[in-house]
Amino acid sequence: MMDFTKTKGQFYLPDGMIYLDGNSLGPLPIAATERVSQMMTAEWGEMLIGGWNKAGWMAKSTGLADRIGQLVGAPKGTMILGDTLSVKVYQALASALELRPNRRVILSDNGNFPSDLYIAQGLIASLGSDYELRVVDPEAVADAITDDVAVLMLTEVDYKTGRRHDMKALTTKAHAVGAIAMWDLAHSAGAVDVDLAGANADFAVGCTYKFLNGGPGAPAFIYVADRLIEEVRPAMSGWLGHQAPFDFDLEYHPHQKIDRMRVGTPPAIAMAALEAALEIWDGVSMAEVRAESIALADYYIDAVEALDLGLTTITPRNGGDRGSQVSFSHENAFAITQALIDAKVVGDFRAPIVLRFGITPLYIDRGDLDEAVSRLAEILTSGSWDQPQFHARSFVT
Amino acid sequence: MMDFTKTKGQFYLPDGMIYLDGNSLGPLPIAATERVSQMMTAEWGEMLIGGWNKAGWMAKSTGLADRIGQLVGAPKGTMILGDTLSVKVYQALASALELRPNRRVILSDNGNFPSDLYIAQGLIASLGSDYELRVVDPEAVADAITDDVAVLMLTEVDYKTGRRHDMKALTTKAHAVGAIAMWDLAHSAGAVDVDLAGANADFAVGCTYKFLNGGPGAPAFIYVADRLIEEVRPAMSGWLGHQAPFDFDLEYHPHQKIDRMRVGTPPAIAMAALEAALEIWDGVSMAEVRAESIALADYYIDAVEALDLGLTTITPRNGGDRGSQVSFSHENAFAITQALIDAKVVGDFRAPIVLRFGITPLYIDRGDLDEAVSRLAEILTSGSWDQPQFHARSFVT
Repeated sequence: MMDFTKTKGQFYLPDGMIYLDGNSLGPLPIAATERVSQMMTAEWGEMLIGGWNKAGWMAKSTGLADRIGQLVGAPKGTMILGDTLSVKVYQALASALELRPNRRVILSDNGNFPSDLYIAQGLIASLGSDYELRVVDPEAVADAITDDVAVLMLTEVDYKTGRRHDMKALTTKAHAVGAIAMWDLAHSAGAVDVDLAGANADFAVGCTYKFLNGGPGAPAFIYVADRLIEEVRPAMSGWLGHQAPFDFDLEYHPHQKIDRMRVGTPPAIAMAALEAALEIWDGVSMAEVRAESIALADYYIDAVEALDLGLTTITPRNGGDRGSQVSFSHENAFAITQALIDAKVVGDFRAPIVLRFGITPLYIDRGDLDEAVSRLAEILTSGSWDQPQFHARSFVT
Repeated sequence: MMDFTKTKGQFYLPDGMIYLDGNSLGPLPIAATERVSQMMTAEWGEMLIGGWNKAGWMAKSTGLADRIGQLVGAPKGTMILGDTLSVKVYQALASALELRPNRRVILSDNGNFPSDLYIAQGLIASLGSDYELRVVDPEAVADAITDDVAVLMLTEVDYKTGRRHDMKALTTKAHAVGAIAMWDLAHSAGAVDVDLAGANADFAVGCTYKFLNGGPGAPAFIYVADRLIEEVRPAMSGWLGHQAPFDFDLEYHPHQKIDRMRVGTPPAIAMAALEAALEIWDGVSMAEVRAESIALADYYIDAVEALDLGLTTITPRNGGDRGSQVSFSHENAFAITQALIDAKVVGDFRAPIVLRFGITPLYIDRGDLDEAVSRLAEILTSGSWDQPQFHARSFVT
């Protein structure tokens, strides 16, 4: 059994704070600050433009992606970093649709993160009105995979409820009707044991600022199955995706491999922070993280339910059916979340009635959860959440 | 007259290096390293998810853009940061085309940066074959603005030659035939005296890692004329462009203002570096920077030409017709550039025969240029550039 005190010691966690919001933004890896300083002074400062080669900034887009690939079952050379998750959703979806030129349906579910649906809506508005975004309930997805579907576009773990789709079964079903399967791993990468190659996924995208702890606005990633890469036309054909960017051709010719999904200049400073964050995973088994994550969430749900606090568990009770978060519903979820934050238990609220708690063994242990449950119980039993300041809305919660 | 020793003192420049490649990547602002460290420890570390509000990360996308707006004539509230320049070109072009639904021509020139042309080619491949990217010589642009043009898409300053288009005249001509004018300010922002509002530009995009010194991979910006913003449909409709992102609607409804051009999560760490870089501009007059940039480039060109080194000046001799760079052609431009870099005069090479030198008074003075000319003369007169190591190609030059 893995000793998680070693990983916990690699994060900065403010004194007295129980941070259960790593599903929104992971905490600061202690090594990241020095790494970024070093990159700025010794690389940007000393090498200037030469840093793209000498310090390997250009190569990190694939090098770091390969490290993430090890956590999500992506073979070397099938993933690349860059842009934001929403941009990568656009890029993957636009590229995927072209692989099925005679079909017009994008199938998704209403548990998908809204941005994915917005991106699809926007793309359809560009492409023309004969395209359709078909949105069904998460439970209805399997039956809705019909032979008019061009792309099945799903987020594996529901950002609100924590419910997890069966990637392999749904991908298999999509392929059986000739559809492309595209997965958003926003709440999966670093959280659950994803196996992209094993599931035979066609495209995947994800972000690195949640369970991978890359920092606010850290770059996204995109995966394209190796068997598809040479036929995928990158819909956003930026210069760094060119097979010879520094020839400055006037015609676009895509790179032979995953590099064709590059668009513009990679975020070198952000990648330095991400690199330090990914090193925490060295020697960590994703299978053990997953097993302990399920155990911790079970422990938390059991403790909360035992106290009968008026919270309804909406996350699946069976560990295999959820991601690495626990969600409860309560009609006063917003104010309760604010009161909890005030008591230094940081979870978050998702409209209209959901309290979310991200739970990862990398830096959360049973002692933290005992303390979180105790503060939550105090707030709910005393009714201390029902004060004006806890009802005031802020921009990001 | 402005004292540029004050701005020069705010950059880290390696000992003995004459850095004339700020048109590719600006040097490190000394304050940036500490600013980023501070942001990482005191904001990300201590505030965690709360940093989006408390540290103002979310607001910096517009706040820093407004500061850049002061340098390019963009009124407050008309610019926003995010993504990379190529992504912003895509977003602006796709949005611009929809404003002229009955036209099918994108007009550009072969002096545009290839990525802009690639992005247009890729977008056309998505939208359908009746669209046309019409690419003419830079000198032929004015006459090519005909009433079938939907979007005039130009880069103001030619990345290779340094030639500058007349933004106001071409925009006026575009408007006269009912076309949309979209400008790429990659080599303009912080380099020349742009006046977007005065020129009546419709869209503009640019990057912040060249003459704005934001660091490798620093975020791009997009400008939309205030008179257009409410009718512009953001083609990449990401969640943060929604009018109420945290309501998690399943339908996209764009933000009322420039925020609709947001896509995904802003790069908070990169924005901290950029913020420190932009503070160097406090109290600096863009008009004085421009005047001194022209004077310095004249000084450099005069000195090089006086020595008759076999270099042909391809940058316009008239200061008003060029950006903030000087380019020469020479059939051995690549090897000469490498030999110069070896002699610590860092310019760059653009295929097939161009030597480029970025010259900005922010950190370059006449003493630097004397030294650069002297080392260049030594290399060319001695023929020391003609050694095997200077002919070897690397990825980024």
